[in-house]
Amino acid sequence: MNASTFSHSLSNGLTLVGEPTNKQAVAWSLLVPAGSATEPDGKDGLTSVLESVSYRGAGDLNSRQLSDALDDLGIERGGGADVEYSTFGGATLGLYLSDALKLYADIVRRPRLPEDEWEAARDLALQSLDSLEDSPARKMFVQMRRNWFTSGHKRAAIGTREGLESITLGDLKADHAARFCPDGAILAVAGGFNWAATVAQVEELFGDWSGKAPQAGEPQIVSEPLFQHIEQDTAQQQIGVAYTGVPSTDEDFYAFRVAGDILSGGMGARLFSEVREKRGLVYSVSASAASHRGLGFTLGYAGTTPERSQETLDVLLVELQKMREGVREDELERAKVRMTSALVMSEESSRSRAGGIARDWWMLGRVRSLDEVTQKINAVTPDAIRAMYERFPPQNFSVVTLGPKKLERPTL
Amino acid sequence: MNASTFSHSLSNGLTLVGEPTNKQAVAWSLLVPAGSATEPDGKDGLTSVLESVSYRGAGDLNSRQLSDALDDLGIERGGGADVEYSTFGGATLGLYLSDALKLYADIVRRPRLPEDEWEAARDLALQSLDSLEDSPARKMFVQMRRNWFTSGHKRAAIGTREGLESITLGDLKADHAARFCPDGAILAVAGGFNWAATVAQVEELFGDWSGKAPQAGEPQIVSEPLFQHIEQDTAQQQIGVAYTGVPSTDEDFYAFRVAGDILSGGMGARLFSEVREKRGLVYSVSASAASHRGLGFTLGYAGTTPERSQETLDVLLVELQKMREGVREDELERAKVRMTSALVMSEESSRSRAGGIARDWWMLGRVRSLDEVTQKINAVTPDAIRAMYERFPPQNFSVVTLGPKKLERPTL
Repeated sequence: MNASTFSHSLSNGLTLVGEPTNKQAVAWSLLVPAGSATEPDGKDGLTSVLESVSYRGAGDLNSRQLSDALDDLGIERGGGADVEYSTFGGATLGLYLSDALKLYADIVRRPRLPEDEWEAARDLALQSLDSLEDSPARKMFVQMRRNWFTSGHKRAAIGTREGLESITLGDLKADHAARFCPDGAILAVAGGFNWAATVAQVEELFGDWSGKAPQAGEPQIVSEPLFQHIEQDTAQQQIGVAYTGVPSTDEDFYAFRVAGDILSGGMGARLFSEVREKRGLVYSVSASAASHRGLGFTLGYAGTTPERSQETLDVLLVELQKMREGVREDELERAKVRMTSALVMSEESSRSRAGGIARDWWMLGRVRSLDEVTQKINAVTPDAIRAMYERFPPQNFSVVTLGPKKLERPTL
Repeated sequence: MNASTFSHSLSNGLTLVGEPTNKQAVAWSLLVPAGSATEPDGKDGLTSVLESVSYRGAGDLNSRQLSDALDDLGIERGGGADVEYSTFGGATLGLYLSDALKLYADIVRRPRLPEDEWEAARDLALQSLDSLEDSPARKMFVQMRRNWFTSGHKRAAIGTREGLESITLGDLKADHAARFCPDGAILAVAGGFNWAATVAQVEELFGDWSGKAPQAGEPQIVSEPLFQHIEQDTAQQQIGVAYTGVPSTDEDFYAFRVAGDILSGGMGARLFSEVREKRGLVYSVSASAASHRGLGFTLGYAGTTPERSQETLDVLLVELQKMREGVREDELERAKVRMTSALVMSEESSRSRAGGIARDWWMLGRVRSLDEVTQKINAVTPDAIRAMYERFPPQNFSVVTLGPKKLERPTL
């Protein structure tokens, strides 16, 4: 059932990666290696404003004409600014792909950045930032990022009020010229399309683009674990935990992912059963594996009542640490079945596959097939997980809490 | 590209509806016609507690064994309690379907409702209710439901503190016996499975189930439009609007849906372009068509700053009303392309298709094929939309706002 993956490198450093299938729908994701991590100093949020202004007219089309043209092709737009990159994505019927790529080439290479519209986009970004105040869990994780990373990765794509307010149209133009460059960019396409025709079209649309954006460098984090509280008059207490894990290029990566599923994957996963079901401590609890280039990490989360929050934090950290003592064969087998089934299900969607392909190429410089991932997952043993935790022990937990109650740092 | 739909009625009133394809994955949704609308008086939230306790042990399996058994089959659980019904859904590889259906028959027909666990589930429901306080938009729409409907549909599945606190184990048992019944229930299956084998298995698993739950009756709404404000110290102002539209059984239904897309579908849709892009008034604005059996309605939403909230409400209501003046050919064509592409894309997912099949059967007593829906959408004309608005004019807007600022009721 594996689709074949093709890739084609342009001489300017852009890579086209595709998985043609016989589906009616097609999805694409154009990843430009310009994220909030490499924003100019003092301009936090600029990437996100630039991404959204790029859709307000491009090439020969003004803002209204461009959004009509996208709608005429039935495109469901996706993507957005992120920490390491920005993506310009979309999905529609395969027969519209060629027209869609023409529009996206204009959006990314020739946005009009119109004088009379960019401020409205910036205002919306400011509103989005304000809305964080009403989303306690998101606010807590933005704060975690700002304090846990010491490299450019500390800048969340949502930006800061100060940064957003200082942006000028000149900044947007200069930043577009400096950072929206083909070297290292990836165009991933999945679904019903013709590979050879798309290669030819992409050469034509992007072949004469040139340049290389500044690199983010390796992510760096605090040397001492954080323990921070944000006082806010909310009903629920938010608890976030961050700690390092396995980078996606490391041989222990699959052991890390499978262990993560045992911790927080299926219904019977440890966190749900210990923290949620047995003790009824929390409504939401989870741990998610995450990664930037060169760094794997885990983000733990719990949302609970202020009264139960200290116990929740204590129990959560104990469960995270306990993984080091090893996993049982039965929970390992369960995680494997769950992960491989989930993989098959997610591949059903062209959109999710296009995103996965772009992400694989970004992290690994190649695309993993469904078979490869399945094989690697199934090869993980309890010993492999133990060995992985020896190299990457769950420790040095950084904790950020938000809510009415300041908690005690657990002694571990 | 249309899959064939099959249906099979059991003598007890349960209908099995299926769309077998050649996919590896399969998804199902078992819809039981017991929702919050028909909860016993004073027990608001009982349905939701019952749905979640049903997974805490069923048939021969205790809570731990059941969640392990579901994980062993790689099942991604879905569904939940809703206003008109509860659904018990899942997705996994096709080869596990038969074992999965055995478990789901136990979950729905023979939950253990264990004495030592049901209170933890009720506690989590109370926490979920508390978390509404930190989700201003959700809270506003729950309030809208409570005040806009006058029939049982006024009860949101999330319940009330009073209702949840008054629930006993006896209530859960009695309610399960009274309301979890096959008459009118629907089991929808989509993806890689064998129809004939599934019919035989479903007869075996559900054939000896019997009973009919009390019916919700037609939804009733307030006779005079609401205009309510919930004072809360939030950063953003939440604005919700509700007004009646076209029921899904009505011949004007497709004109209503296409008009809804012109209002709030693609990038260039009226609300985005008038309220968001041009004026930069709001970060989020939308209007969604919704329906219960016998009633179609539209829910409008805007999230904005307190300063801009009066203008946002005024402009929003003007745009909603203006639809009555008719739509242009070009925006109509755009909506058609968008909707038919979106349809093809959503059909890629077995899970979304199983949900769609169950929902179609619930609303219409039959399943619409992709071709039928595409045809009906493409047949909509500007005249048909005008005629639809003559019968169902956008008026009598009920408005609920939440935030720091009390707004003036616009004169319309």
